[in-house]
Amino acid sequence: MGTVGASLVRIIQSRANELAVTCGRPIKIVAVTARDRTKDRGIDLTDIEWFGGPVDLAQKADIDVFVELIGGSEGAANAAVRAALARGLHVVTANKALLAYHGVELAEIAEEKGALLNFEAAVAGGIPVIKALRESLTGNTISRVYGIMNGTCNYILTRMEKEGLSFADCLKEAQRLGYAEADPAFDIEGNDTAHKLAILTTLAFGNRIAADDIYLEGITNISIEDIRAAADLGYRIKLLGVAQRTETGIEQRVHPTMVPLDSVIAQVDGVTNAVAIESDILGELLMVGPGAGGNATASSVLGDIADIAKSQPGAQRVPVLGHPAKALEPYRKAQMQSHEGGYFIRLTVLDRTGVFASVATRMAENNISLESIVQRSTQHLSPSHHQTIILVTHATMEDSVRKAVAAIKNEGYLVGEPQVIRIERPKE
Amino acid sequence: MGTVGASLVRIIQSRANELAVTCGRPIKIVAVTARDRTKDRGIDLTDIEWFGGPVDLAQKADIDVFVELIGGSEGAANAAVRAALARGLHVVTANKALLAYHGVELAEIAEEKGALLNFEAAVAGGIPVIKALRESLTGNTISRVYGIMNGTCNYILTRMEKEGLSFADCLKEAQRLGYAEADPAFDIEGNDTAHKLAILTTLAFGNRIAADDIYLEGITNISIEDIRAAADLGYRIKLLGVAQRTETGIEQRVHPTMVPLDSVIAQVDGVTNAVAIESDILGELLMVGPGAGGNATASSVLGDIADIAKSQPGAQRVPVLGHPAKALEPYRKAQMQSHEGGYFIRLTVLDRTGVFASVATRMAENNISLESIVQRSTQHLSPSHHQTIILVTHATMEDSVRKAVAAIKNEGYLVGEPQVIRIERPKE
Repeated sequence: MGTVGASLVRIIQSRANELAVTCGRPIKIVAVTARDRTKDRGIDLTDIEWFGGPVDLAQKADIDVFVELIGGSEGAANAAVRAALARGLHVVTANKALLAYHGVELAEIAEEKGALLNFEAAVAGGIPVIKALRESLTGNTISRVYGIMNGTCNYILTRMEKEGLSFADCLKEAQRLGYAEADPAFDIEGNDTAHKLAILTTLAFGNRIAADDIYLEGITNISIEDIRAAADLGYRIKLLGVAQRTETGIEQRVHPTMVPLDSVIAQVDGVTNAVAIESDILGELLMVGPGAGGNATASSVLGDIADIAKSQPGAQRVPVLGHPAKALEPYRKAQMQSHEGGYFIRLTVLDRTGVFASVATRMAENNISLESIVQRSTQHLSPSHHQTIILVTHATMEDSVRKAVAAIKNEGYLVGEPQVIRIERPKE
Repeated sequence: MGTVGASLVRIIQSRANELAVTCGRPIKIVAVTARDRTKDRGIDLTDIEWFGGPVDLAQKADIDVFVELIGGSEGAANAAVRAALARGLHVVTANKALLAYHGVELAEIAEEKGALLNFEAAVAGGIPVIKALRESLTGNTISRVYGIMNGTCNYILTRMEKEGLSFADCLKEAQRLGYAEADPAFDIEGNDTAHKLAILTTLAFGNRIAADDIYLEGITNISIEDIRAAADLGYRIKLLGVAQRTETGIEQRVHPTMVPLDSVIAQVDGVTNAVAIESDILGELLMVGPGAGGNATASSVLGDIADIAKSQPGAQRVPVLGHPAKALEPYRKAQMQSHEGGYFIRLTVLDRTGVFASVATRMAENNISLESIVQRSTQHLSPSHHQTIILVTHATMEDSVRKAVAAIKNEGYLVGEPQVIRIERPKE
């Protein structure tokens, strides 16, 4: 009965008649629990039974569906969902951390008990990406899933670009407007995106969830210079979560990414989320919508409840994670060093003869072919004699880029740390 | 057993094991029919029973699901689907015309018989918009659905803009590449979009399907000058189908539309489709994907079949058209004259003193407030003394625009027909 819970109760109560007609039976909230019983939530709670806590409710309430909107992978959320599934109750949850860390086990319990476990709201809020992967794309072999799944990061990157502000200023503004937490690390370091990505990876590729096996880079190092250089080269920077099937395994990575300026995903601004799915039969499907907020989340939770209401009682055949939990394969991790793609590399160097040639040579020695290389004076940024060199590579190996950059670092002409940003292109 | 049918058989056969695991039971093609039995379709048809025709198959085959991929609202498709539903068989179809003209009646039969009638492929090919409206958005009140639902038109408009070619040249090119039919009228006049829109309108607003009550304007009058003027003003021209709830009823309209250049939908290029849904709880959801092609269509058909395979036998509670067919309300049509929105008006006028003032006066007399007004010499286009006047209005009534344009026509300084293009903006 937090923000989403209160929204959900309000919506279900106010649309009771319509829901009963659409779903073929009434949907009624009959039991709730929350820390504070006395708080005015602006909803009518008469006729609704209060329970002492989530586990108590999950164990004892006379219900068909248990809806968990507590959050967190452990503690009350975890215990209550297990208690509900153990009774064979259907469960709806918006809890990405719970799914990311216990999803396989919970799916096994649900499937054993013939219960449904729905979690549309856990990834990308209002965007029905779980349904698309779990139902619409059945039979497709998926090659890549990627998306903007954290509104805080996308808001910050959008404002940095549109207003030329620094990362720090935009973060403060996001905090002021309630788009970022007081402790923003979980969002801006990419962990939130990683939880969501781990769930999508499993739905897409049929492996056991591997939420801790994700390459992670946040947006804290993205400067306004990177954003401007990206725009000059025809790119925009987004924090993407990407899961991709490769010859050596499955890549799971969350990092700032250059996407082509004229791609659809590049236009996804502010707190909006987007998820793209590439598959062999359908082709590319992109979905754009609100990634967070009480109402968008409540809408997905309600869709999940309605699906259960419309379905028949008895054993279910919709596998929770797209594939039956017991048939999920071990996660075969592709090493990040083997990642292949284009790279943007921005170097600040001393203004010395031969530096440009040296950089180009180190690249060539590592078999990196360059799409473009630009040298620029940065005198307006620093009074000293520094130059900026920006390279964009053709598709190459991460390992080669790391070696080339390490070699350049050893040359002694680098000022500060080199910036390396991966390029991600939609399927042609 | 046309293109889509053969794709579907190939996919179901080659992924039989995976589908059986995901769906909890095998999916087998056991009976087919096609005009030509001898044609080599590159698929193994041993063990598949051939029937003399679709109705014969629908009436006699020992099947659970009947898949109709014939097309057309009447004739064999119609008769066969009715025969299948009459037996209580589940039906999957990709047939937009059948749904647009007989959808309500077929839904009534299906619901009476406890059969499912799935038609994801009928609208926007591979984009799961039917599922989003019918399932994910349950409980939402929808205010507007709009989209690019005809690949031929979007391909032509994209090429006109990117290469500065005329409509006629792009149409020829589209025909050469197989993106347009030899008789392209059904696509370029907007009828194809209208069929799809009528289906979406019913799913969104719960009215009986009204496929003939749609305001229709195709893209044949769009010139390269319109496209250039649109770009100068920050817009791109797309053929949209729009269904919108208004105070006086529901608008259904298909016409060339100016969308803001920096909107996501403006970036949807070529034969790709996109559908946006605006609702009160979720907010705006946009889905982008392939709108046609054998594989994308087969993918949606397979998703529909898999949904049936995963569901329980017996009476179903998923209403075919989102709302139970008997509960659909009569279509309450909003008059096009009452449409409110921004307008782009391009006039070619004689180069006479007072013309500009006269145009502005006729607008003011009809209470039309202008966002911008631009006068341009068109000497490079014609040797005569003509000028182009381009107006962009703030939100106004269609009726006012029609009256103002009629008044301007009466002034005698107009050269050729005035061009009027409606502006459509995503929800803020």
